[in-house]
Order: sequence, then structure tokens, then C-alpha cells
Amino acid sequence: MWRTKLTELLGIDYPIIQGAMAYISESILVSAVCRAGATGVIATGGLDTDYVRDQIRKCREMTDRPFGVNLMLQSPNKDDIAQLVCDEKVSFVTIGAGNPVPFFEPLHQAGVRCIPVVPNVKLARRVQEKGADAMVIEGMEAGGHDGMQTALSLMENVIPEVQIPVIAAGGISDGRAVAAALIMGAAGVQMGSRFLLAEECQVHSKVKQAILDATDTDTVITGFTHNSNVRGLKNAFSKKYLEREYAGASSEELASMSAGTNRSAAVNGDIENGFVQVGMSLNRLSQIQSASDIVLQTVEEARSLLKNGPSLAGAGQ
Amino acid sequence: MWRTKLTELLGIDYPIIQGAMAYISESILVSAVCRAGATGVIATGGLDTDYVRDQIRKCREMTDRPFGVNLMLQSPNKDDIAQLVCDEKVSFVTIGAGNPVPFFEPLHQAGVRCIPVVPNVKLARRVQEKGADAMVIEGMEAGGHDGMQTALSLMENVIPEVQIPVIAAGGISDGRAVAAALIMGAAGVQMGSRFLLAEECQVHSKVKQAILDATDTDTVITGFTHNSNVRGLKNAFSKKYLEREYAGASSEELASMSAGTNRSAAVNGDIENGFVQVGMSLNRLSQIQSASDIVLQTVEEARSLLKNGPSLAGAGQ
Repeated sequence: MWRTKLTELLGIDYPIIQGAMAYISESILVSAVCRAGATGVIATGGLDTDYVRDQIRKCREMTDRPFGVNLMLQSPNKDDIAQLVCDEKVSFVTIGAGNPVPFFEPLHQAGVRCIPVVPNVKLARRVQEKGADAMVIEGMEAGGHDGMQTALSLMENVIPEVQIPVIAAGGISDGRAVAAALIMGAAGVQMGSRFLLAEECQVHSKVKQAILDATDTDTVITGFTHNSNVRGLKNAFSKKYLEREYAGASSEELASMSAGTNRSAAVNGDIENGFVQVGMSLNRLSQIQSASDIVLQTVEEARSLLKNGPSLAGAGQ
Repeated sequence: MWRTKLTELLGIDYPIIQGAMAYISESILVSAVCRAGATGVIATGGLDTDYVRDQIRKCREMTDRPFGVNLMLQSPNKDDIAQLVCDEKVSFVTIGAGNPVPFFEPLHQAGVRCIPVVPNVKLARRVQEKGADAMVIEGMEAGGHDGMQTALSLMENVIPEVQIPVIAAGGISDGRAVAAALIMGAAGVQMGSRFLLAEECQVHSKVKQAILDATDTDTVITGFTHNSNVRGLKNAFSKKYLEREYAGASSEELASMSAGTNRSAAVNGDIENGFVQVGMSLNRLSQIQSASDIVLQTVEEARSLLKNGPSLAGAGQ
């Protein structure tokens, strides 16, 4: 066990959240992460309410520890998902891609903790003022949908401005980065990409292999010029997309090009014409492990660094 | 004093390098940083060799501590500057914007330490193999010319792959980030933007005020779609430039738009039509201080966090 403001808030052993990944983070992965003493988040984007209810109940069958659900505010069924989360009394939600504030009151009344993802200092202050229980700051190193700031800059800019627990995310692949986030004042971290390599992760095996094969320069951001960043592995899809994007293509044309590419890679294993959404810290993603080994190895490395100082990592003598 | 591989290599008290900033980091600022126990780098991009010689000699008059010179490999007079650095037996060079390897042998023969700036794991391994004394990894949070990776991802990807000292850069504005870099295994940090607010920094006062007034969302990257990132404050220039860039303008047109904009802001104080090159961690850039206060405050904060652990920063109890 390791006490931080986040472990206290959520009643978990270690300050690590396995972040929501659309079409990927479901009950088998989430429950495995929870049994290891961290916590996970069930993704709901693109999924119908009945399926999500089923996933929540399955997760409960596999663990009695707290887990979360992601409320994706661009989903057409966001209100139904929010109601479901309240009915099922899920421990917490992470909330992204829209204005989270109207959801705080109903969720709180049902006893659900609200953890919005915020992109900057202004919104960090606002969600705190409106009663958020914690917040995630996610850097543009992250796989999938990104903001415009990096993890380090978000930690520099946001953490000293708020009092509620801040969860750092984006590019955190090992215990060194967890230690760095905690020493900067984060109460915990959210990791996505590392859990793509969990044995319990149901993503297509070709996606896992593509990540194992990749190095640091192999990701790219699509949508940067339209302020709708999505990071993933360079491939035939991203090449074609960026040619059109950088030639000045419209948002509509680009949206039509990217539609379905995440699911196509994650579920169907089309790693060339789909889009493998993964973060930038690829050189630390080098083996398939159980979710438990990922959690415990990361925690042990972070704890050792925080206890013994940076000399362990080669900085000193 | 604080011993790391970097302080040992350069013979300095604290593992902080004030990074080269074109038209800005000259003898007055650099010598002030050196007298405080860190070290600084004289910028040479766009400057003639006689002027640089004069700056090196003036710096020597103001401090007997080691300092560096930046070798900007896109400068037409790079060979003359390299020769000058050898003749003057400057302590070290940072080398960026080209292939540094051919310069290692002549610089080493003159006793000058070689610290290239590398953008990825492949080049990190290469410069180590070719005899670099240390390397800088600079994240895209940094002001001015940037690569495509963030500081956190570079620290994740590069540090475990090399043995020579790694200096982390990009978005490092306070002692928390210094502590984070060291705990991740960096031997030190390079900071630029924080030193723009040094009393001894000769940048135009309007630039200092614009930085004091700015918040985290106020920077932007120009050149992203042409793989020639330059970060600075959003203004009339950046708006006009990005409109053309995102409409698919040619590299030539864009180069002609940006020519002289750095100097125009830094020297002449035209903060609307020039480009104020500064990093993303703006909320921690909030006061004008002496270079000595910047160094000592940053070191003290980092040291306290590394000694006492993250609870000081609010992560624990």
C-alpha cells in the first residue's frame, strides 16, 4: 500500500489508474488491474448502454475493488451512460471531451466521484470550483485524443494552482515517470499504453506486436492543424491522412477519413489502414506482462526512486 | 554544491545549464549564471565571429567559472565559430541543428567538451558511440526550435539507452521539474525561458512583460506541418503565419514570413510582428529575479523534494 490523496479518495492500494481506451478497456483488463491494487476505467465511447451495463456487472463479478467508467461527452448516449453509472453506483468516472460541470451534481448525489480531464489551468480552476473530486491532466504524449500541452508543462502549470488531487497522464510508461509525477506534486498517474501490453488486454495481437516493434519516433499526431489531436503509430492511414491535412483539407473530409480507424486497428487488427492509438514513450513498452506485474513493477520502481533518490537512476554517483 | 555526472563533467556546483537563446544569451547573462554556480551558454546563431570572440572574452572578464558556446550547425560561419571555440579553449559546446559528429575530434583535441542536442534514441546512441561527452534531450515544450518529442517522452525513451550524462530540457521552469528530471535519471537540466526573466538578461523589456502576462495556453508551434517546429507566444505574426501554413503554403513562403521575427522581438521589442520564443511552462514564469536567485531557488526546491520526498509537493499526506 502507498498512501496519496488519490489512493485515499478512491480506496485503492497504489496511485495508478489504467486509463480508458475506446474498444479496449473492458471488464477483463479493468478487473485485473483492480485486483493488482491499482484501478481501471471501462471505456464507453462508441458503445451502447446495455453493453456498458454488462461490462460493469462483469467487472463486479471479477473484483470487489473500486473501478471507474469513462464518460465520453461526445457520445450521443452520454446522458444514458451517466444515468447508468449512477444506477450502478460505480466508484468514479473520468469525464472528457466536453463540459463536465453539469454532470457533477447528479453523479455526486449517487455517490460517484467525478474526475474530469482538463487541458489547461483555466479549466482546472473551474472544475475545482464546481466540485470535482480530482482531475486528470493529460499531455500530448498520450495515445489517442490529446490536448496541446505536454505532460511536463501541464504538471508545471496546473499542479501549483489547485488543491484537489491531480492525476498526471501522457507518456508515463515506467516507474521513473511515476516517481517524477509524484515528486512534482501529482497525487497519482493515469497510464494507458503500458496496459495495452497486459496479458489481460483484449486488443488485437497485431496491435500488441506493432507496439513491441515500435521506437520513439514511430508515433504521429493527426488533426494538429484542426486542434483535434489524435496520436498513434505512423502507417499507411496516417500518411494518407496527413498528406490531405497538410494540404489544407476540410475538417469534414478529415473526419470521414479517420472514422472507424481506431476500432479497425484495435478490434480487427488492421494496423495499416486502421490507427493504432498509442503514446510516445514506446521504448519502455517492450514486453507482454500480466496487469499485476505491470502495476507491481511500476510501483516498486517508483517507490525505490522516491525512497533512495536519483542516484539509483544514474544521475549521481 | 551538488554532485551529479554533469557537475563533475563541467566542474560546476549545480546541475543546471542556461541554454543558448539566439540574440539573447550573451556574456552578461551567462557570466551571472556561472557566478551563481550553474553554467550558461553563449548563443552564436546569426552572429559574426568577431562579435562572438568579444563575448567569450567579456564573459571571461566577468567570471572565472566554466561556460559554454552554442554551435549552430545551420549558421554559415559554423566552421569559424568551431575554430574560435577551440582557439579560446571554451569549456564546452552544445551543438544543434545538424550532424555534430564531425566536430567532435577537433573540439576534443582543443579540450572542449561536446554536448550535442539529440532528438531521439537513434541519434542518442550514435553520438555516444562517436564520443560525445554528454547530450541534451530537448522536449517540444521548449521555446524556439523544437523536435517532435516531449520532455517526458524523451526522458522515458532515451535515458535508459545511454550511459553518458543526459541533460533534460524543455518546459523546465522550477525546482519541481528539476527534481523530476533527476529522479528519471537525467544528470542535469537545461533551462532557457526561466532565464529570460533574469535581471541580467538583456532581452527587450517588452518580451519580459509579455512572458509575465502569459498563461499556459499562450504559446503555439509554427512549422509543425513542415517538421520545423518553432514555439513562441501567439500574436499577430503567428496568426498570419499559421493561416498560411495550414492552408498548405510552401516552405519557402513560410521561411520568408518568419525571417527576422526572433530578432525583431528579442532585440527591438516588436512582440506583435516579431516572435517571442518562449517555452510552454509559462505559469511558473512570474517574476523578474537575479540569475543567482533563479539558480539558488530552483536548486533549493529540487533538493528539498529529492531529500524529503513528494509529500512536500502535496502528493502524500
